[in-house]
Amino acid sequence: MDYQFSESLQHFKSSAVREILKLTQGKSIISFAGGLPAEELFPVEAVRDAYVAALNRGNSSLQYGLTEGYLPLREALAERMRQKNITVTPDEMILTTGSQQSIDLLTRIYIDPGDVILVQQPTYLAALQVFQARGARVVAVKGDEFGMDLEDAAAKIKQHQPKLLYVTPTFSNPTGYVWNLERRQGILQLCRRHNVLILEDDPYGELQYSSDRLYPSIFSLDTHPHGSVVVYTSTFSKTVAPALRTGWAIGDPAIIRNMARAKQAADLHSSSMDQQALYELLCRFDLDAHIAGIRKDYEQRMLLMTDLLEGLNIPGLRWNRPEGGMFIWLELPEGYKAEELLVKAVEEGVAFVPGAPFYAGEPQVNTCRFNFTHSDSKEMKLGMERFARAMNSYVPSPV
Amino acid sequence: MDYQFSESLQHFKSSAVREILKLTQGKSIISFAGGLPAEELFPVEAVRDAYVAALNRGNSSLQYGLTEGYLPLREALAERMRQKNITVTPDEMILTTGSQQSIDLLTRIYIDPGDVILVQQPTYLAALQVFQARGARVVAVKGDEFGMDLEDAAAKIKQHQPKLLYVTPTFSNPTGYVWNLERRQGILQLCRRHNVLILEDDPYGELQYSSDRLYPSIFSLDTHPHGSVVVYTSTFSKTVAPALRTGWAIGDPAIIRNMARAKQAADLHSSSMDQQALYELLCRFDLDAHIAGIRKDYEQRMLLMTDLLEGLNIPGLRWNRPEGGMFIWLELPEGYKAEELLVKAVEEGVAFVPGAPFYAGEPQVNTCRFNFTHSDSKEMKLGMERFARAMNSYVPSPV
Repeated sequence: MDYQFSESLQHFKSSAVREILKLTQGKSIISFAGGLPAEELFPVEAVRDAYVAALNRGNSSLQYGLTEGYLPLREALAERMRQKNITVTPDEMILTTGSQQSIDLLTRIYIDPGDVILVQQPTYLAALQVFQARGARVVAVKGDEFGMDLEDAAAKIKQHQPKLLYVTPTFSNPTGYVWNLERRQGILQLCRRHNVLILEDDPYGELQYSSDRLYPSIFSLDTHPHGSVVVYTSTFSKTVAPALRTGWAIGDPAIIRNMARAKQAADLHSSSMDQQALYELLCRFDLDAHIAGIRKDYEQRMLLMTDLLEGLNIPGLRWNRPEGGMFIWLELPEGYKAEELLVKAVEEGVAFVPGAPFYAGEPQVNTCRFNFTHSDSKEMKLGMERFARAMNSYVPSPV
Repeated sequence: MDYQFSESLQHFKSSAVREILKLTQGKSIISFAGGLPAEELFPVEAVRDAYVAALNRGNSSLQYGLTEGYLPLREALAERMRQKNITVTPDEMILTTGSQQSIDLLTRIYIDPGDVILVQQPTYLAALQVFQARGARVVAVKGDEFGMDLEDAAAKIKQHQPKLLYVTPTFSNPTGYVWNLERRQGILQLCRRHNVLILEDDPYGELQYSSDRLYPSIFSLDTHPHGSVVVYTSTFSKTVAPALRTGWAIGDPAIIRNMARAKQAADLHSSSMDQQALYELLCRFDLDAHIAGIRKDYEQRMLLMTDLLEGLNIPGLRWNRPEGGMFIWLELPEGYKAEELLVKAVEEGVAFVPGAPFYAGEPQVNTCRFNFTHSDSKEMKLGMERFARAMNSYVPSPV
């Protein structure tokens, strides 16, 4: 049999993160590479009780469900969103298999091959994979630690007439950066004026360490609930647990209705056991208190990692101290190549993700993403010692 | 905001089944329309125990999982498949969100817009939706109650050079028909000779009422495990419960690897809670005995429905007595239009699905699909009385 795979398959690049995780399999490696939440914080007993409660409702809990998702969970989520100044009804919401599927479904219903999508520079890798697999032309907009550059965004919109702009404005993966209010408002106005749909991906927004500052979602700044410029997506993966694979998208009913049509063909519906368990969890568990605990814990880990980096005293090495999320963005000294350094690092027994694959445009090859939420303090210290050894033994190849 | 949906969205037709279910909402209607398994047979206690067992394994049960699915479940499934003369290793298998997602993923990696897919006439509606949304040209092959017409299949292969042939050879949705051995072998040989990949969809194969006859899967007849002509997909939705949304595809490692690449972009992975619970269920629950119970029960329901149809004594009304599965295929008298009859039926308080949407080619408009697994005997009798009233009051519109 001579298989004739589709042309669009050529666009599915395997994730660099996954390749690295393969590289480390079987070795005793300390990994700052993955995007994994801290397992020890998962509320496993509460989740178990929630499944039991859902199944105690009887046999109908095991039947087929709605494509849009379990209605009581959509109602409870709408209620939770109200606390964040987002007013939505359940028919403006669809439950998906993680927020990843929200990105995929919106792309299916909104993007044809050749259409242009604007993204941050750098941006979430697995969104790039979706866009590229769809045959979209992905164009990167300049930015800094305060968000997208509004002038460059305006120029790129004029030049390329994009249909979609994809952003992770709050504690971005990979950088951990957060947009200020001016950038949020600026992008919203720009996109409304030029009829560009915004996909606001917010998996990390709830992981803000301190409540000193307020970063309203772009969705909540949009005062046009009907005909909204923004589709907002988030997930329980970082606040409860990833295994339940439950994310959601909110947006205009026309958008949500079409996402449901696409989802019906894609998988009929996501696990309604998980959705029912999450509903029961919201009824009987103080999720806000739980998230407060995660925030405190992650802040400690972030502070430890940045302190350890400080202690390495490596000239030319730069990093940020994010206000939330799960990642630190490192800039290696000028001339360093993160992918080369990674080979050394793995030899020393530590892994991270080079920054290059996160760039849709020209990559900055001396950048890397460090995750700090999946290592305890002992592992983190040991990992940083190994990273220091890798840095010391590494000599950049000539350009 | 003026939304500019993708062109391919135009191909996503909303399912006729779903539209009818909407029509019946809030009314006290007896529905033979859905494809729902009997709720009262769901092993709800065993499923609850399985979730508890999975979560008792600790916090790591809630972490991100592999895109290919939970390895112990793939191993247990491979073991189960061996009893059906199918020898596979876990890397020849991927777990998906129902078998629906297997159809979608294979289509994404194998079909480009304009490619030809051959299907049975009539065939599974939600597969047609996937193929049409992809922009494939779907061509129907003639067939009868013993399977696809081999001569017509050969002619259509010659004429259209299809890349894929999609079949449900065992207790098909919508007809309940089962292919004989000759047709299975004939199609396999034909497809191997002409390099046409077969997607064998088998959600109902385990629901064979009697073990008198053996209907080997086309996959098991293929003696080339590497370079296999067949991708086989099935699901736990009909043997355990739909809410867990767990299906699987098996095939050549090259195919499975590419499906995993597509799945990574689509949703990273399906619910690993559900997969872990199903693994625990297989460890501690006699699934085969449970399935034997379902078979016996469904056979009784099928016999009751066909006896009731017999008792209606309607000239020109024809139906089959399937050997398995969940559906009966009805042919109304010549000149009747099932969609018109449905309107009358809903007025009388009973619903079914007209056959037309299941046809890729010219539809036979006097056909309908009746489901017998979601009504108890009281509902079935009442529903059939209502159906008889609808038949009596119905006058076909002139052609």
